[in-house]
Amino acid sequence: MNNPIKIIVVGGNAAGPAAAAKGKRVNPSADVKMFEAGEYISTGTCEIPYVLSGDIKNYEDILYFSPESFKEKKGVDVYTKHFVEEINTQSKYIIVKDLLDGITRQFQYDKLILATGSKPKVIESISEAKNVFTLTSVKDLIEINNFITTNKVKSAAIIGSGYIGLEVMDSLQKLGIDVTVIEKEKLPLPYAEMEIQHLILELLNQNDIRFCGEVADFKPVFSDGNVRSLNINGRIFEPDLILVSIGFTPNNLLSLKAKLATGKSGGITVDMKLKTSNPHIFAAGDCIEVMNALTNKPSYIPLATLAHEYGHAAGENAAGGNVRILPVVKNIAVKILDKFFVSVGLSSKEAAEYSFKFNSVSKITNNLVPVMPGSEKVFGKIIYENESGRILGSSFLGGKEVSGYGDIISALIRTKQKVSALSDINYNYTPPLSPFINLLSLLGRKVK
Amino acid sequence: MNNPIKIIVVGGNAAGPAAAAKGKRVNPSADVKMFEAGEYISTGTCEIPYVLSGDIKNYEDILYFSPESFKEKKGVDVYTKHFVEEINTQSKYIIVKDLLDGITRQFQYDKLILATGSKPKVIESISEAKNVFTLTSVKDLIEINNFITTNKVKSAAIIGSGYIGLEVMDSLQKLGIDVTVIEKEKLPLPYAEMEIQHLILELLNQNDIRFCGEVADFKPVFSDGNVRSLNINGRIFEPDLILVSIGFTPNNLLSLKAKLATGKSGGITVDMKLKTSNPHIFAAGDCIEVMNALTNKPSYIPLATLAHEYGHAAGENAAGGNVRILPVVKNIAVKILDKFFVSVGLSSKEAAEYSFKFNSVSKITNNLVPVMPGSEKVFGKIIYENESGRILGSSFLGGKEVSGYGDIISALIRTKQKVSALSDINYNYTPPLSPFINLLSLLGRKVK
Repeated sequence: MNNPIKIIVVGGNAAGPAAAAKGKRVNPSADVKMFEAGEYISTGTCEIPYVLSGDIKNYEDILYFSPESFKEKKGVDVYTKHFVEEINTQSKYIIVKDLLDGITRQFQYDKLILATGSKPKVIESISEAKNVFTLTSVKDLIEINNFITTNKVKSAAIIGSGYIGLEVMDSLQKLGIDVTVIEKEKLPLPYAEMEIQHLILELLNQNDIRFCGEVADFKPVFSDGNVRSLNINGRIFEPDLILVSIGFTPNNLLSLKAKLATGKSGGITVDMKLKTSNPHIFAAGDCIEVMNALTNKPSYIPLATLAHEYGHAAGENAAGGNVRILPVVKNIAVKILDKFFVSVGLSSKEAAEYSFKFNSVSKITNNLVPVMPGSEKVFGKIIYENESGRILGSSFLGGKEVSGYGDIISALIRTKQKVSALSDINYNYTPPLSPFINLLSLLGRKVK
Repeated sequence: MNNPIKIIVVGGNAAGPAAAAKGKRVNPSADVKMFEAGEYISTGTCEIPYVLSGDIKNYEDILYFSPESFKEKKGVDVYTKHFVEEINTQSKYIIVKDLLDGITRQFQYDKLILATGSKPKVIESISEAKNVFTLTSVKDLIEINNFITTNKVKSAAIIGSGYIGLEVMDSLQKLGIDVTVIEKEKLPLPYAEMEIQHLILELLNQNDIRFCGEVADFKPVFSDGNVRSLNINGRIFEPDLILVSIGFTPNNLLSLKAKLATGKSGGITVDMKLKTSNPHIFAAGDCIEVMNALTNKPSYIPLATLAHEYGHAAGENAAGGNVRILPVVKNIAVKILDKFFVSVGLSSKEAAEYSFKFNSVSKITNNLVPVMPGSEKVFGKIIYENESGRILGSSFLGGKEVSGYGDIISALIRTKQKVSALSDINYNYTPPLSPFINLLSLLGRKVK
């Protein structure tokens, strides 16, 4: 009898558990081990702002498996608080340090899956202060929660107004904390369409969120290991808490040491079977670059849904499968106060960056017939290629309908449809749910 | 100088005003007249149940134009309370009776547009009773409202559990009226998928709506011109009000007299330019048969959105344009108590009727991650052709997300996609808005 295949997964958050579970499922005789440097595995990262806000009652609600339950239900041996220091690609083993006892051991693999995720960017000058946080893990969440409670936090500054910054802004305000958002660009959500940036600024103003744009420097003053004040364009702020939310980079230390190929963003380069430049090593999740369906170029798109999907594929392929992944149509949704923002495909800024010749149409309309209670404004914009008419991207800001709008555009991009297709679709209508003439249809007609 | 073209539109509800306004817009010199037998024009028919329920405060809110404002804003001469009795197709004039003074006059046309709409089916044995109503027009609405107020209605029987019956059931219950739904089939919403019929029955039970199925006869007892009691399968009911909601038929009296071709349903036959069998007569709205995009056969699909869209096209073509309409992907949404139902394309029953060889997949899942407040169950079913895999239809019952789901399926049917496309789409995810794994993706994976 052959020895069972040894599959090792590094990283236990999103892509890792998906890969480990799938590998074991498609090859039940496989010996699958998963290593995680932190205390928790299989956590709901996107849900973190909603635990902070209290919408989800307990952080334990977003720990979807414990090491024990993962072993029991998925048949995977889990090692938490185990830090993988190095990969020996020649002899195919990893060197792992047990963070509890400090002992280092080696584990052989036949196939290795890297799911080391991302790390938040930090601001070196303040990153060590006691009241400065990032919020990307359950550990961060517990620390911030404790800090807020212990120090009776009344005010917070959020540095960075991307998706996560705006989500956390909402969470902190729900806790009764006075929030200031600090951004180096002039308007919030720098990657969004200009019209949406203006609408969001208005939304922040209406909701008593202070927005400080064009902040080049904030001259921190320290005392007792805390940042005591920030000087924002000449005005002094003394936030009890500072949250830094200026983006992510791939957590690629291990792969760099192992000399795996990486892309511009630092993300690990993988093929359409999620194989890295080493034939025995796969990778998935926020540590890789994915193929962008619109540019046909590798992109860094750290999203939990992709981590999950690609994790499954990496696990299956590591276990002997032959799954091909599809390029990604980026499709992102964020709640911003009482509105929802969705961005699909390329924004105008990205389309310009990739030298597309494109045009756009935009429109504000009501999401329900105006006479219905609850009818509110929704903004939509479609970006399309000049000659071909192919849809390149879209953005929406409005009520819950924008999720469906985004998914329709995502489907149309996937199937390479022209913008004129939008007005050829029969949309449903009933007064309490959907508009008499759909925003997408109106946008399509503006092009014709 | 030539005489201006004379365009006459018969019917002033949905398709009629769209046709008249569009005809005048594309040909400003045209002499456009619109005749309507009733008192109101340009009314919101789909909104009627929401005026009855009180969600919309006043019936005047759904009179989108008066004859005067339509003349002023659209340049169309409007004749309300004018009944068109006959078309003389040889000499191209219509014979119109002024319902106020009883005088009959003739009006010449160059192009005629029939937008005579539909009429509700009635039950002859009870249709003349004072407490028996249908609800398809603002006039009906006013009468029912008056009856409810004057007679302090406490109980109602709704005969028929189609879309409209279930909407009105909801409206009447909101008014504090005890509602019984009477249906000749075993389960409510007879055209829906069986699984959805069962879920709706459960929903009615949970909401204290009495459902009586398999009712072949209800042996009405009359007194003082009212129906005093109904005998439902041996049980006696004494509803204060009876609403008959058993469907619609095309209002085709005028076209039959004019010997225009009609289809099986009685709907006027039109080509893809909305021309009838007479080259000078166009038709649009609930009085026509439309081409079904899935069966490529004429179908009777009375929907306000279609009436509006096709009305525009008929108006443009009557005024000299050359617009081709697209076949219809039926896409219907209905609020049923606190849930939403959407049906797109063909149901299993229709697919069988049209002899498709098909299969289906269905699934119940949560519309948000289960840890989020407001997360609730949503049911979905996809019908697809066996050999080709082409999507034929789908149905959903759940929260507001089903509108988007339906529109995605409608888009995929329009662009002739296979069911496998569903799991190739990148769906958006954020905890308060959309699920981690979309129901459509789960359904697509069940096929693979």
